[in-house]
Amino acid sequence: MNKVYIIKIGGHVLDDEPSLKKFLTDFAHIKAPKILVHGGGKLATRIGDQLGIQSHYVKGRRITDEQTLDLVTMVYGGLVNKQLVAQLQALQCNAIGVTGADGNLIRATKREVKGTDYGFVGDITPESVHSTFLYFLLKQNVVPVFAPLTHASGTMLNTNADTIASVLAIALSKHFEIRLLYCFEKAGVLRNVQDENSVISTLTKATYEKLLSENIFHDGILPKLENAFNAIQAGVKEVVIGEHKHLIANLGYETKGTLILP
Amino acid sequence: MNKVYIIKIGGHVLDDEPSLKKFLTDFAHIKAPKILVHGGGKLATRIGDQLGIQSHYVKGRRITDEQTLDLVTMVYGGLVNKQLVAQLQALQCNAIGVTGADGNLIRATKREVKGTDYGFVGDITPESVHSTFLYFLLKQNVVPVFAPLTHASGTMLNTNADTIASVLAIALSKHFEIRLLYCFEKAGVLRNVQDENSVISTLTKATYEKLLSENIFHDGILPKLENAFNAIQAGVKEVVIGEHKHLIANLGYETKGTLILP
Repeated sequence: MNKVYIIKIGGHVLDDEPSLKKFLTDFAHIKAPKILVHGGGKLATRIGDQLGIQSHYVKGRRITDEQTLDLVTMVYGGLVNKQLVAQLQALQCNAIGVTGADGNLIRATKREVKGTDYGFVGDITPESVHSTFLYFLLKQNVVPVFAPLTHASGTMLNTNADTIASVLAIALSKHFEIRLLYCFEKAGVLRNVQDENSVISTLTKATYEKLLSENIFHDGILPKLENAFNAIQAGVKEVVIGEHKHLIANLGYETKGTLILP
Repeated sequence: MNKVYIIKIGGHVLDDEPSLKKFLTDFAHIKAPKILVHGGGKLATRIGDQLGIQSHYVKGRRITDEQTLDLVTMVYGGLVNKQLVAQLQALQCNAIGVTGADGNLIRATKREVKGTDYGFVGDITPESVHSTFLYFLLKQNVVPVFAPLTHASGTMLNTNADTIASVLAIALSKHFEIRLLYCFEKAGVLRNVQDENSVISTLTKATYEKLLSENIFHDGILPKLENAFNAIQAGVKEVVIGEHKHLIANLGYETKGTLILP
């Protein structure tokens, strides 16, 4: 076992059945050891609305109160996660759905209150990852499917899926050659967010900082880029940001998305 | 690894925080390899009511339509399962929450429509269990916590928790000495359901059949007894039916509940 793929999918593909089917079929075909990390999709918002759980935001960031924590634990850790696992099993991919609590795979620290109380949110570092157990699962040809949840002191915690993917990649990079793929609804990192043909094919740290100072990136891509560069600088060999429908192409060296370089 | 405990808890203890805390503390203290199987509790009904999902029954049995399947996948596979796992982790018990889909641990067959269509319900046999992976988890000192869900052909299925416990026990009895414990809110199998002091301390198949013919058992205990005798006849060494608060006593030979004998 040498190369491990860590693939993160976001909400959009989860909300669209045919796209999800194609994505999972492609994912199941990857021969190398692999890990899937999923976000939430609109389902949590829809079910939350039905349950009368209101989302609270502070400075654009959602606050995870107790009700919201229950909601995301149900929807991300239960419904979304298990549906993905069942579908992958039908594609002969031996998936196991997990959160950070399962097998103590990712311990977190509940975010400290510094001015804003984000509620039940877990902060994690590469040291939070129980790599030994993850390695054992991969060795058994089992494919971990992570919901965006971690734990601390007996409670589940909400944790950003992009961060989970990056932290897993860094933790495993001590032992494996890791390619981390962020799959989303855009073709890659775009020079102009309106223009799908403006994919930046390779992005070094230097270029990234230059473009940052020019304010060309839109808000949605910034946390992904930050996670991507964190991973690259901490020893992850390759990071690609691209469209979920180009998964197979983005596994190779002629990617259709954006290849992040040190 | 010789002896394995398989412990099923029902709904009542899940709905009562102090009882659950005590139960989990006792469970975490068991030194031998162990598996927890949980039912649903009233939470699914409460959340279902809030979501406007109506339960349909045919001859007293709930029909699992698509909405109900989503509900139990969320609540049992997500909320209940992950809360148990997080609490066990805080008690230094390295739990991993699973359904039958995870690691393909329990494949099912969707129940055939014979007159009544029960919907998304999975029927299972001891041959449905992926014992090798289960053995591997136990060997790693990981404690599987099963939600009452299985899978077939890409979809999750609702499966009775008592049956899951019995089927796991039978499958593992080929390799281990198994004690299967059914923990519920009564002290054991009662001769008179109104009288908690009427616990039948040992129950053989012959006595069971005699008492069956006398109609002394109330409906609630019958499926448990059927699962218990199935397990004993298929090679499970010991089955105990008892109260969740007597877990520790019911691990030993001086049980406070009902010991099922061949």
